[in-house]
Amino acid sequence: MTHTTQRGSLRVVGLGPGADALLTDSVRSAIAGATDAFGYFPYVERLSGLGHLTLHGSDNREELGRARSALNLAAQGRKVLMLSSGDPGVFAMASAVFEVLDEAGPEELARWVAVDIDVQPGITAMLAAAARLGAPLGHDFCAINLSDNLKPAAVIERRIQLAAQADFAMAFYNPCSKSRPEGFERALRVLRQECEPQRLICFARNVSHADETLRVVQLQDVQAEMADMRTVVIVGNSQTRQVGRYVYTPRSYGVAGSR
Amino acid sequence: MTHTTQRGSLRVVGLGPGADALLTDSVRSAIAGATDAFGYFPYVERLSGLGHLTLHGSDNREELGRARSALNLAAQGRKVLMLSSGDPGVFAMASAVFEVLDEAGPEELARWVAVDIDVQPGITAMLAAAARLGAPLGHDFCAINLSDNLKPAAVIERRIQLAAQADFAMAFYNPCSKSRPEGFERALRVLRQECEPQRLICFARNVSHADETLRVVQLQDVQAEMADMRTVVIVGNSQTRQVGRYVYTPRSYGVAGSR
Repeated sequence: MTHTTQRGSLRVVGLGPGADALLTDSVRSAIAGATDAFGYFPYVERLSGLGHLTLHGSDNREELGRARSALNLAAQGRKVLMLSSGDPGVFAMASAVFEVLDEAGPEELARWVAVDIDVQPGITAMLAAAARLGAPLGHDFCAINLSDNLKPAAVIERRIQLAAQADFAMAFYNPCSKSRPEGFERALRVLRQECEPQRLICFARNVSHADETLRVVQLQDVQAEMADMRTVVIVGNSQTRQVGRYVYTPRSYGVAGSR
Repeated sequence: MTHTTQRGSLRVVGLGPGADALLTDSVRSAIAGATDAFGYFPYVERLSGLGHLTLHGSDNREELGRARSALNLAAQGRKVLMLSSGDPGVFAMASAVFEVLDEAGPEELARWVAVDIDVQPGITAMLAAAARLGAPLGHDFCAINLSDNLKPAAVIERRIQLAAQADFAMAFYNPCSKSRPEGFERALRVLRQECEPQRLICFARNVSHADETLRVVQLQDVQAEMADMRTVVIVGNSQTRQVGRYVYTPRSYGVAGSR
């Protein structure tokens, strides 16, 4: 039985990088109160033990269709979750939902207007990785998605170049994938032009999972194969240092007392 | 009674932007298992209802002394928390702890070497703000601390200029403070040189608190007074748009079908 008189909702929630201990209470409550969950197959799989939820898994790159289906079901009065890993607002499903809303025709808009939409943040991969490494993002930094699926490679290269000139630490999402293996290699070429050979590059793979690996390498020793689709790469700024097993970027920059 | 034979710990934890619902389970567990909590007065105040904790509040700008005191207490076998708001790795206490470790003399190092140190991520202000606004950070973005307390104003201005040329969305932390009111004004001057007058600027104040306010303004209508020390400012990129009450940045950029 669908409750067509009840106002439906779409909660776009972030599941964090993997470990349940990194969920927020807010996201736990949203999961407990939902009737349906949409998302990329491995994310809905994380909720497969919860009997109260109808799971709607879909493939990667079907983000817009997934968002439309979720809005349609919410319009029928269901309490719908849209699952992202990490934070839904960082290279994840939140933008896709708003793109679909923005491109909706009058008929869809009339159907969706009553849906209560909200976004609930989660621990995004770069911040989970940074915490495990120490504090490599403790000064100004940027986040760049290296996939050229939705933007030209030239834009990515130019952004890395300008970010290096600004001396931002950088977090690279989607450094490469099976279908697009060359993203991280292209980024490396730019880094080698712009940065000193000793620049610290951190590879954090499957952060918070049982098989998590962390690796810190100087730029001159980096190999393209060190990053795969489950890796977040963090590039230090020119001041990033190691102390013991930790990597950190000092808070101060270019002033007396800073390094 | 202090347990000098037990290995002490220092957990650098993020409390999120304010609402308890944005705490992670991991941070809740760390709080439950701790004996002492250090931090800026308002952050330790958040834990004042917990009888099992000895609270050690200190003033702003006393980060290094606070980190040293916490390490010293942990070296005595205590379970010590270092509290940050948001995420400890983003313009917060994690870097200060590693700076103190890095600058330690042999005597301090000998005392601190047995302390189990870790960092536990939290929801940082810009991602909490982005979720409330929609998805303004859904494409490549950067985070810049506008305080010139620890870096020269010229470095900040240059970074904003390069970030605008890279067409990053930007999150500004500490846009101004009582002692340094001019940070956001300086940033505005650079934005007005580099960006079109219609650029969307979001002001998110006291996110997740009862008195949260959100405001979205075109660059041409921004006044410096719109930001204070409790505000995170999010600057859209050239593609950032509004749909209904939401602000979002499309995932695609500079390719057919993107705006």
